[in-house]
Formats: sequence, structure tokens, C-alpha cells
Amino acid sequence: MECEVLSLEQVCSFLKQRDNYTILTHSSPDGDTLGSGFAMQGVLEKLGKKARVICNDAIPQKFSYMIRKPVGEFDTQTLISVDVADLKLLGKNHVDFIGKIDLAIDHHGSNTMFAHRAYIEQDTSSCCEIIYKIAQCLNVELDCQIAAALYTGVATDTGCFKFSNTSDNTHLVAADLFKRGIDAAEINRVMFETKSRNMIQVEQIAYRSLEFSYDGRCAMVILPYELIKNCENSDLETVSNIARSIEGVLVGITLKEKEQNIIKISVRSHAPVDASAICGELGGGGHSRAAGCEFEGTISEAKQKILAVVKKYLEINNERTCTSKQA
Amino acid sequence: MECEVLSLEQVCSFLKQRDNYTILTHSSPDGDTLGSGFAMQGVLEKLGKKARVICNDAIPQKFSYMIRKPVGEFDTQTLISVDVADLKLLGKNHVDFIGKIDLAIDHHGSNTMFAHRAYIEQDTSSCCEIIYKIAQCLNVELDCQIAAALYTGVATDTGCFKFSNTSDNTHLVAADLFKRGIDAAEINRVMFETKSRNMIQVEQIAYRSLEFSYDGRCAMVILPYELIKNCENSDLETVSNIARSIEGVLVGITLKEKEQNIIKISVRSHAPVDASAICGELGGGGHSRAAGCEFEGTISEAKQKILAVVKKYLEINNERTCTSKQA
Repeated sequence: MECEVLSLEQVCSFLKQRDNYTILTHSSPDGDTLGSGFAMQGVLEKLGKKARVICNDAIPQKFSYMIRKPVGEFDTQTLISVDVADLKLLGKNHVDFIGKIDLAIDHHGSNTMFAHRAYIEQDTSSCCEIIYKIAQCLNVELDCQIAAALYTGVATDTGCFKFSNTSDNTHLVAADLFKRGIDAAEINRVMFETKSRNMIQVEQIAYRSLEFSYDGRCAMVILPYELIKNCENSDLETVSNIARSIEGVLVGITLKEKEQNIIKISVRSHAPVDASAICGELGGGGHSRAAGCEFEGTISEAKQKILAVVKKYLEINNERTCTSKQA
Repeated sequence: MECEVLSLEQVCSFLKQRDNYTILTHSSPDGDTLGSGFAMQGVLEKLGKKARVICNDAIPQKFSYMIRKPVGEFDTQTLISVDVADLKLLGKNHVDFIGKIDLAIDHHGSNTMFAHRAYIEQDTSSCCEIIYKIAQCLNVELDCQIAAALYTGVATDTGCFKFSNTSDNTHLVAADLFKRGIDAAEINRVMFETKSRNMIQVEQIAYRSLEFSYDGRCAMVILPYELIKNCENSDLETVSNIARSIEGVLVGITLKEKEQNIIKISVRSHAPVDASAICGELGGGGHSRAAGCEFEGTISEAKQKILAVVKKYLEINNERTCTSKQA
């Protein structure tokens, strides 16, 4: 299938021409896909169109303020996906949509171009930042609910403006959304300062297990199967950053026993230590500062193995790390 | 002493008239006072003036990228304080400055007007946001180092744009600072994602001690004297938020035994529970969502006492809390 790459103006005229939209968000929905979906629905409704948002998975309660009840019944005429990099990410019935998506709007450079038309901005913080741009181009006046949805996506995808994907334009968008009367502090409280009871339990296990090696340059957190077997993946989200966030730590490791004797090793590092090279030695890979690999054996074997590799990389980098402190 | 309240234009003409500035920051310096100080120094230097920054306490290593070596020797002609709400906050030799400060620039409504002149904007996120405004008014082109100092103050005082003191203008300022080539992601990593070994130890104690009451609507963290006696106040910064950040918790309590049998009780709450009313019953006070009181007795007595008060307030609010979930 040929995918036509549209310009911003072409996206806008396409949206003005069509009607009866179903907007698809990715499964395990996050703030950006839902924010993009419901903001898009709101923008289309302000153009006098009918639109709904669909997600394969249930929408977590914390995002419920974004939900817009569709105005009236209608059959889908136009299918749009937002923040979906690959058709498979639509979830279990993604095969139903093969060859059927009319327009994909996304900020992932890895988008597989599964739609008939695509508008991709890969250097943009979030899909919501793109939807904002489209709304501006369509001259749609944003109401407070649309603005709150867009803010949610921008804030969650940038770690509240903390990560390197934040740009000057991201802040300009936020400034404009503030003017629409959103309660950003409350959104941020729910998104960034609320942890589930399960998350807290996992953090308790993590803090209890914390061990340091090599003069505090390596920290390790261990999550044994018996203690985490009832946890969801989302409960484990926050722990992989604990080890690396400690002052003086260059390599932070999380050992997660997914099944008895199957250990997922996550490695996070600070410059100049290469996490991907470390994991490569155990058959894994990833990015230079965040990588992973899998190990079959006991926790204590995994620990010995990964620490031996880490030692080598700390020695390689020893001279450089002494001079690479915060300039 | 009479304190003259200046307009923005009056501040600018004052700064243009004078020379040989010493800029005073508050003791236990944070990102905002240091960012304001070094940015002000940079701005004054760009006007051809001489300036230096002084702080009573050592500047923590993590802020070292802001430091500007003063250009040449000079005797102080003009004394300015930045982000200093009360003369006492200058630190142990604050008496040396009584009646001597020429201009106070601050964002605290509680400023005690200790200077000959004052420019106070109490609804502004940070003192750095005010210094930015002054620099604009003076037509000074910001270099990257000044911009990094200003960004640091804005980001640290708003919890990286998370808190309710963030405004549309705060984001506009950030957008402009980004254009000066700052490495905001690296600043944020150092400010928000790096914890000292002592902080981690305190968090370990906190997580180990975590207890829930009243169907999970109250969570409590306990820090006994024996375990924290070697900690600095700054090591205890992050723990008071742990209890309230847990899903379902309306009242988060931290019991910190400062000295044997002297317990500092911190109460953080979610709407509609009034933390200040709870602490008021034990002789303390504060804000509606964050308050404190002190208790003489054992940890177990303090626990019993505060839980009894919390119970009462949860019962008062029981009906309202059922309907006050995230809209």
C-alpha cells in the first residue's frame, strides 16, 4: 500500500472535506494518545463534524476528565490514528484495520506508514503538540477541555517539560493552553504525584534491596519473582530509575525476575558509560544510556555476571569519568 | 526605616545609575536565589557595571555552572538582595546588613521591606522570572550562561512547571530561554533526578516504616531520631511527599523525631481535608493542604494523637470526599 505524506495544509483540507470520524488511539493508552484523540474529537466537533475516540483497552480513571461523549450516532466514514507508530499497537483486533486507516498523525520517526495518508513530525515532543498545530491551522478556538487534553499529552510525554524532547515551541504551546483556563497543577498532581498501592509496594522492595558496588559508582535494585508476581508492568514503571538517580552512580541496574530464573536486566547509565555496550555483552541492546538484556539463571548468577561486565566498563571509562563532572 | 516601592522602570533606571554591585542571596542557597544572583550579575556586566554575588553558605556543587567570576576588583557601592524575604535569611552575619541594602528584588509577598527600595512581584513563580523581566526592560541580550541561571530558578521554584505558581508567562519565559541554547534537559537531570546517598537512606527508612489507616485514606511515614540524627534538613526534603502521593490517600503524615521525644508532625492533605485545621488541634498550623505541628512525647504517643485527630476530619469530610473525585 502506498502512503501519501501530507503537508500541514493538506491535513487541514482533508479534515475539512471529510466527516464522521473514528479516531484510534494505541492500546495501553497514555496521556499523549488519549489527549490527541479527545482533542482531535473536540476540534472536529468545532468544525461541525461528528467524531468519536476508540481505544482497545479501558481508559484509566485518571484520564477520565478528557473524555467527550460523541454528539449523536453515526457510521464511520473516516478513520484516523493518533500517536500510533505501528498498526499492531492498536491492540488485539488491529488486523481489522489493515488498509483501512485514512490518516495517521504521529510524532514517531519509526511510524511504519500503515495508513493511506500520514502527517509525521518526528522532532515534536508529543502528538498533542502536533494536534495543537493542526487546530491553529484550522483556526479552531480551543475550549478548556480540549486545552486540558492537549496539555496532558504534552506534559506526560516530556516528563513535565523535563526531558530533552522539550523545545521552545513546547513551552509556547503550554503558555497558550494556560490561557484557556486549564488547571495544570491538578493535572500534574494526578499524572506525576500519584502512585498506586502496587507501585509503592514495588518501590518498597526496590529500596530494601538496594546495593552499591565499585565505590558507589554502580547501584543495583533486585525484584525477585516471589515478591512481584502479582504486579502489572505499569506497577514496575517507576523503579528502573531509582538506581541511576543516586549521586555518584554511573550505572544503575534493575534485576527483575519475570519468571522463576528468567531475569530481565535493565541498565541505565550516565555519560560516558555505554549501557547498550554493557547489555550487548549479554546478548541484549538498546540506547547508550538505557538498555536491557535477559538472563537465564538465578538472581545471584545474574548479579555476578552483570557486575563483572559493569566493572570492565567502569575501568574503561575511569579516566574519562574523573573529568566529566557537570561543567 | 522607610522602604520605597519601585516600579519596573524605576528599578531599571536605578540599576543604570549605580555601579559596583554586591548581590546578596539567601543562606541555604537554592536554584532561585543563586539563579537570580548570577543572572543579575551577568545583566549588570552587560551594562558595563561591576558586580559580584555573595552567599553566606557554600554554593552546592550542583549549581557551579551558574557561577560567574567577577570582572576586576572593586569596593561595594550598591547592595542588592535577590529572593530574600527577610534580612535574617541572609544568614549568620545578617546584622552587618541592617539598613544597608539599597534594593530588594523578591517574589515573596511576605517580604519584610528591610531594604531602602523594593521591587516585589508576589504572584510571580520565581525571583528569576522577575530578573528576566528586568533584563528585558533593560534591553540586555541574554547569553547562554545567564539564560541557564534564570531557567534553573524558574524550573526549581515551580517543580519543573508542575506547581500552581506556574503561569502562562512562566512558560513564555522558558520558551525564550530555550532559544539562548541552554541544555535544559541536563539542568533538569541534575536538579530533579539526582538524590544524595543520605536522601536515599532517609527514603529507605520512610518506605520501610509506611503504615496505612482508615481504609487507606491515611498514610504515615515515621523517621525515628536514632536513624536520622546524622541527616541534614536537605536530606529530609523529599520524604514529606511520599505518604500523600499514594493513590486513595487523603491525609499523608510524616513523623520526624528531631530530638529524643520531640516529634515534628507534617501533614499533607488532598481536598477537601484541611491539613491546617488538623495541625491546629495540636497547636500548629500552616496551609490548607500542607501544615505542621510539634509534639512532645514518644513516637507511639504522637501517632495515636494525630491519628485520632485525622479520624475526626476524615469523618467530617466523608460525604464530601465521595463526590469530590477528579471531575
